[in-house]
Amino acid sequence: MAPQNLGRLRSFIIGMTGAVDRLADDEEALIDAARGHLAALISEDDWLGDAFAKPHPKYYQQYLLHCDPLERFSLVSFVWGPGQRTPIHDHGVWGLVGMLRGAEFSQAYSQRGQALEKGERRRLEPGDIEILRPSLGDIHAVSNAYEDRVSISIHLYGANIGAVRRRVFDPQTGAEKPFVSGYASNVVPNLWG
Amino acid sequence: MAPQNLGRLRSFIIGMTGAVDRLADDEEALIDAARGHLAALISEDDWLGDAFAKPHPKYYQQYLLHCDPLERFSLVSFVWGPGQRTPIHDHGVWGLVGMLRGAEFSQAYSQRGQALEKGERRRLEPGDIEILRPSLGDIHAVSNAYEDRVSISIHLYGANIGAVRRRVFDPQTGAEKPFVSGYASNVVPNLWG
Ligand SMILES: [Fe+3]
Ligand SMILES: [Fe+3]
Ligand SMILES: [Mg+2]
Repeated sequence: MAPQNLGRLRSFIIGMTGAVDRLADDEEALIDAARGHLAALISEDDWLGDAFAKPHPKYYQQYLLHCDPLERFSLVSFVWGPGQRTPIHDHGVWGLVGMLRGAEFSQAYSQRGQALEKGERRRLEPGDIEILRPSLGDIHAVSNAYEDRVSISIHLYGANIGAVRRRVFDPQTGAEKPFVSGYASNVVPNLWG
Repeated sequence: MAPQNLGRLRSFIIGMTGAVDRLADDEEALIDAARGHLAALISEDDWLGDAFAKPHPKYYQQYLLHCDPLERFSLVSFVWGPGQRTPIHDHGVWGLVGMLRGAEFSQAYSQRGQALEKGERRRLEPGDIEILRPSLGDIHAVSNAYEDRVSISIHLYGANIGAVRRRVFDPQTGAEKPFVSGYASNVVPNLWG
């Protein structure tokens, strides 16, 4: 493997820190800027350390890569083992999902009364970015598009997502349960190593 | 061991981030604020994860705990194995050294012509803080005060110290060599885990 290009991740964090400093009051402009930074980050699969790309045999993994010290944004690598999938869930804050390796399906849902109604199903390939905004409906379920290999997407959220109190939904009844995701590891990459 | 009080480290990082945001133009005030935050951080030895407290059999270890994304400050745990010591070195930026566990000696030096002259030797005990400022002379050598146990001090610097080009000195001749310390690990604590 080529030497890990940590500079790409570092540039992203510096750029996003500048963006939240500058654009705190303009969510539209912040998401625009964030999309550009995320596009650059996932344009090459040359920077993610192995420790943050490791699948678990049973559960998809959420590795925190960086949380802004003032919790204005967080960056997480989602690692899907073969066939793994999330429950149906929401986010409560804006999010951008950028595909880095493999592919995933994002199945949208909307609430109709008590029940859930299926919406669009998108397939994300490397370089693709999906935008999630609570104001536009942000309920979905995500799955690895592959049954025989690992996929990895890089998620950027407008908060410390691991601590956000959000919801999971029963696919049959639409019933909601509170959900706080946490993170899979007690370390994050040393950007300056 | 009691559960790790990560909130103490998190509060420090949040406090220091606020301080550098607010006090960018006033180094005196920033160092005053930093001293208060560091004093609170080292007031209890209940928050440092074992992975960042691990000695190496031969070399003292410098574990990055946090670097401000804009490189305005960094926090490092220095782990001294029994009898370990640094070369004589400078810093190039302001620094605060807070003793967390065990004890250390800081032997000051000053340049007199080409040669080095010994200054004060301080012993730091848990809770003690030493301030280093280039404008006041910041050449020293640090050693574990113990030959039979590990000591740990927590260092706060006004830059990403691992990347600062600074100097080490030959104790006999005073000759200088350039020195960039780097860090001992490619991960840092997940403050939000
Ligand atoms: Fe999601
Ligand atoms: Fe020093
Ligand atoms: Mg496409």
